[in-house]
Amino acid sequence: MRDLNKIFKPDSVAVIGASNTPGKVGYIIVDNMVSGGYQGKIYPVNPNADGEIQGLKAYANIKDIPDKVDLVIMSIPAVFVNDSVRDCGEAGVENMVVISAGFKEIGEEGAKLEEELTALGEEYGINIIGPNSLGTTDSHTPLNSSFSQMMPPAGNIAFISQSGAMMVAILDWSVRSGIGFSKVISLGNKAGVTETELMKYLADDPETAVIICYLESISEDDDFINSMRETAAKKPIIILKSGSSSAGAEAASSHTGALAGSDLAFDTAFKQSGILRVETMADLFDLGLAFSKAPLPTGPNVAIITNAGGGGVVTVDAMEKAGLKLVQFDDETKARLRECIPDEGSANNPIDVLGDAPVQRYKESLDIVLEDDQVDSLIIMVCPTASADPDGIAKVILEAEKKFTKPIMVVNMGGPSFDNANDMLRANNVPTYVFPETAVKALEAMTRYARVEERNYTDCVSNIEGTNKEEVAKIFAKVKEDGRDTLLGSEAYAVADAYGISAAPIKLATSASDAGDLAEEMEFPVVLKIASDKILHKSDIGGVKVGIENREEAEAAYDEIIANAKKAHPDIIPDGVEVQKMMPSGQEVLVGMVKDRQFGPMIAFGMGGIYVNLIEDVSFKLAKGLTCDEIDEQIENTKVATLLKGYRGEAPCDIEEVKEAIKRVAKLTIDFPEISELDINPIFVYEEGSSALDVKIKLD
Amino acid sequence: MRDLNKIFKPDSVAVIGASNTPGKVGYIIVDNMVSGGYQGKIYPVNPNADGEIQGLKAYANIKDIPDKVDLVIMSIPAVFVNDSVRDCGEAGVENMVVISAGFKEIGEEGAKLEEELTALGEEYGINIIGPNSLGTTDSHTPLNSSFSQMMPPAGNIAFISQSGAMMVAILDWSVRSGIGFSKVISLGNKAGVTETELMKYLADDPETAVIICYLESISEDDDFINSMRETAAKKPIIILKSGSSSAGAEAASSHTGALAGSDLAFDTAFKQSGILRVETMADLFDLGLAFSKAPLPTGPNVAIITNAGGGGVVTVDAMEKAGLKLVQFDDETKARLRECIPDEGSANNPIDVLGDAPVQRYKESLDIVLEDDQVDSLIIMVCPTASADPDGIAKVILEAEKKFTKPIMVVNMGGPSFDNANDMLRANNVPTYVFPETAVKALEAMTRYARVEERNYTDCVSNIEGTNKEEVAKIFAKVKEDGRDTLLGSEAYAVADAYGISAAPIKLATSASDAGDLAEEMEFPVVLKIASDKILHKSDIGGVKVGIENREEAEAAYDEIIANAKKAHPDIIPDGVEVQKMMPSGQEVLVGMVKDRQFGPMIAFGMGGIYVNLIEDVSFKLAKGLTCDEIDEQIENTKVATLLKGYRGEAPCDIEEVKEAIKRVAKLTIDFPEISELDINPIFVYEEGSSALDVKIKLD
Repeated sequence: MRDLNKIFKPDSVAVIGASNTPGKVGYIIVDNMVSGGYQGKIYPVNPNADGEIQGLKAYANIKDIPDKVDLVIMSIPAVFVNDSVRDCGEAGVENMVVISAGFKEIGEEGAKLEEELTALGEEYGINIIGPNSLGTTDSHTPLNSSFSQMMPPAGNIAFISQSGAMMVAILDWSVRSGIGFSKVISLGNKAGVTETELMKYLADDPETAVIICYLESISEDDDFINSMRETAAKKPIIILKSGSSSAGAEAASSHTGALAGSDLAFDTAFKQSGILRVETMADLFDLGLAFSKAPLPTGPNVAIITNAGGGGVVTVDAMEKAGLKLVQFDDETKARLRECIPDEGSANNPIDVLGDAPVQRYKESLDIVLEDDQVDSLIIMVCPTASADPDGIAKVILEAEKKFTKPIMVVNMGGPSFDNANDMLRANNVPTYVFPETAVKALEAMTRYARVEERNYTDCVSNIEGTNKEEVAKIFAKVKEDGRDTLLGSEAYAVADAYGISAAPIKLATSASDAGDLAEEMEFPVVLKIASDKILHKSDIGGVKVGIENREEAEAAYDEIIANAKKAHPDIIPDGVEVQKMMPSGQEVLVGMVKDRQFGPMIAFGMGGIYVNLIEDVSFKLAKGLTCDEIDEQIENTKVATLLKGYRGEAPCDIEEVKEAIKRVAKLTIDFPEISELDINPIFVYEEGSSALDVKIKLD
Repeated sequence: MRDLNKIFKPDSVAVIGASNTPGKVGYIIVDNMVSGGYQGKIYPVNPNADGEIQGLKAYANIKDIPDKVDLVIMSIPAVFVNDSVRDCGEAGVENMVVISAGFKEIGEEGAKLEEELTALGEEYGINIIGPNSLGTTDSHTPLNSSFSQMMPPAGNIAFISQSGAMMVAILDWSVRSGIGFSKVISLGNKAGVTETELMKYLADDPETAVIICYLESISEDDDFINSMRETAAKKPIIILKSGSSSAGAEAASSHTGALAGSDLAFDTAFKQSGILRVETMADLFDLGLAFSKAPLPTGPNVAIITNAGGGGVVTVDAMEKAGLKLVQFDDETKARLRECIPDEGSANNPIDVLGDAPVQRYKESLDIVLEDDQVDSLIIMVCPTASADPDGIAKVILEAEKKFTKPIMVVNMGGPSFDNANDMLRANNVPTYVFPETAVKALEAMTRYARVEERNYTDCVSNIEGTNKEEVAKIFAKVKEDGRDTLLGSEAYAVADAYGISAAPIKLATSASDAGDLAEEMEFPVVLKIASDKILHKSDIGGVKVGIENREEAEAAYDEIIANAKKAHPDIIPDGVEVQKMMPSGQEVLVGMVKDRQFGPMIAFGMGGIYVNLIEDVSFKLAKGLTCDEIDEQIENTKVATLLKGYRGEAPCDIEEVKEAIKRVAKLTIDFPEISELDINPIFVYEEGSSALDVKIKLD
């Protein structure tokens, strides 16, 4: 793991491309550093410098600097950057932010420069942020080594942005939002340091309470899920990942794949690693504000205090949608509340202290509610009625905040009337919002995140037994040898069987008597099907015979199927005829695999049958690092789970068999990355056991 | 229809309860009127007044005022209100706002006073707003006849609020939001004038462009759908209706009713009448802003201009979710754009003018895009990069806004950098937002509303033929006579048959030979079922015999069923045995009715069968005023529609038959309000025709 600390806490910084000309990037960076209050040494570097730059001794080359340089800020034309990086490497520089643009973002030529830059970083062991970065800031050091004139307000939110323009916009916006930043990082093109490396660093940073990210891509990282699980358990990570709408275009072509796309894979990866994904720019900061200020709730039970009945109802509406629970107060709490609230108000949750509520009524209700052990968190709403005293209410909230360790979300519904109160509250770790729905959204995310500690990330796939890897490798080798990419039914069955997936036996017969033998072996009734990956509509040409009850029928069916196939496709030589045992029907489910370019195999589970695409009752999980809890959750997230458990008095099905099938498909697709598509639909699940009817496997 | 004009444009106002004591409500109201610049006559009324109140000649009683009083503002203790209303009525007052509280909201005693107030209003023909209202304001008159010290900024948004505290909050908040109001109305308890009456008035108000409402209930109005259709076609109406979360608790008890609730009825009623419903407080105003400023788009095709690539992607993500379309520019537009945008930018939609874009580049792109006939609307995004000139860009946007009649939504992403630009733009009818998702949400609502003119509201239910009302009335009378509330299968079939709903014949046999006759008449095969509303699990006790192929079997089955029933339930005397024709199976759909307390019968349509509650593929429409377009839409909104159209090569089903069934169930449940539950599940739909298998009807 990289040590990135000196990027934010360097004792000395060299600015390559420093300038004496106001307005130039190389000028602004040095100026930002000095005016931002940076206390370490600053070394301007510029081959044309004559002695001093902005009053600091300047150097012609990084190598000329007599002391150790912890961090280099590079701001020279792209074509000169790599030579300069070499100099830095030779001078022992370990950390660098490349502001210079003109790399991958301008096309092929730039991309070449960037590849070289990446290689140099690796060669010399330099942590490179950028190129095409706006720089980084650390408000605690303090160090503004960015090209942005705005030093963000200090705080405990770390903000990583893949877009420089969006970063500047956000910093401008944040001036009035009451949020403060520990570090702001403009990622640029990510030629060196990636967002996941930064997240890992920030998760251990004592000045950071929450990490928020605007990302357009996730860097390749084979261990993404596992490393992010660990990181997200340390600090909440909130991501706005743009490009979700390209999902459709990228949908995989396989059958169940039509339901999945790579945005789904991102979504799944984030969920499985405990990262909170948001949908809008506003959410990113509304949630960041809450996490940066309030303690985590220990449960989902919320109390509401309001001076407007309607506001309480709106809050409850939002809470129910978000899955938060309205506490039902016990008799003691109700009795205590009744003492301080007039009859026309409400001592039930949501508590209505009425429009004429003086500060004292808020204070008493606050204490009573927060003392109730049932209450995990509190939303307190103030409308600027004629009697309301926003500042006075803010003061009693701050007193309560000191006494209790429960999150208090304040909804100060209005504008100028609350300016002072909001400043007071936010400065003292109480998040405030204008509208109740925003407070609820943030509280829901905190409640969800608080459960991260309950998560059991034990891998449930790696160590399963009864898988025969050699056997599968042999079958795949044979398929490749034949120049095919799609497995015959009998081959797919053999693969499933080798991995312990219960399937209806299918074997390949190459003569009528062979068909008779196989049928007798697997016991009647059986089905016979033409075996050929080139014949698609097998039933239509008389290539399928069902309900074969004895040897004679089996042999006759063989000959008839071969004859029908020859008639319909004289040019195709079939591989033979497949004999499959007919199974009693059961609850139909599907287990499939969609391969994601970034995250590898993604397992689909859902209702099976021919209406899969219509019903869309499918839930996805990434195979790598899949846990038993996640498999349970995957099944639970479908409607067919209700049928499996025994719907309307029917006997429950063997859900353990379903879990086995998911696990074993996950293991198979991890073991064999050459599997490009896998689709088992339907699997009949019985009261005991199960049987996969149709296993389709395609290789790269 | 009431004439409410003098509430907002009175020539003279009397304030009953006017006071000389600062801080008192009766003082504030007079003061607000005077300081708000009201130009008409003000008559303070107070029995204790000695000559003048706040410098105005005061009167002891309304009757003492020599001139006509257009509007009375009533602010005296609740117990005196009704006597005073009588005086007003006798003095010929026609309009009144009752500020006084202490009515329905305080309990039974207050409710009595309020009933009397309502009756007095009707008796004397007085339009009463309130009681428990904060008053009303009209920023154009100007008249602030409210108890709220804030005169809202002038504009063209009419705001109706059922909560006074929320209204005050919103007015406080709006100071900085750049929105302006034509009228603000605090509804109070709605003892007289209702929100729908106000909406109708505002729809014809030339000073109002859009009506936004915060509502906690909708007043009883039998003609809600039809009158709101007309109103919403004149002006956009946006409603935040709180209390959506109580839906669950109010869910109807019938089978499909479990899926419906009264919040669903509100939702359905709003949709069917063209009202835009929003989910959050913020949405109410974000949408209001757009409708109040920008012209309506003529289609869903959007162009985006941005100086941050990432911002463009975020906007596209939001657009795809909202169902807006990204225009694909034709070659001409692309060629023109390429001339003004550097190569590293993008001349495809979203247009990236790059972070260094000067004003001129924005200007040229703006003109090119707006000149393209394909483009219906434009989202233009500015990040405050070092080169961005927010004011300059605002100016070119305003020039474009004057030249073109397409909506331009501005996303000025940031804070203080855009204060001036936002003021300029909003003052000149261009809506601006901080984040792209908000702009997209507002644009989507405008695009949807713009289609209101395409709506064909011709009632498709009232005039259908082939319904026999007398026959049904006779059957219901018989059921009531028997002291039952649930119809036997044979009765329900007869009802369906009388209304032209195709159903499998069911007739009641009261002897074995009777059963044989009926079976022969309807042709074999038939099913026999014990007829009794008291025996629930008919199959379990041997009360059902299927596949009866001839007369002998039918007669034997009759006797066996009667014997089985007697054995299982010796105390129950069955009505006989029902004989039903067995029908071939078809695509299963359901048509049902859930009765809503406010809006009457609501028709459910969806996938039929035993998994109805699991699959939840149901769409609802209110029966009253149901149009043919709405029936099409109702079918289209379900997944079973795909199956009906012929899924994966299957033959399409007779969708006309489904429409007939919906229409006729709507007609039946409108004609007979005593039907409390109706559920037809399944209906088998065939390639031609259909057959309802199980019709359940319950009466009040």
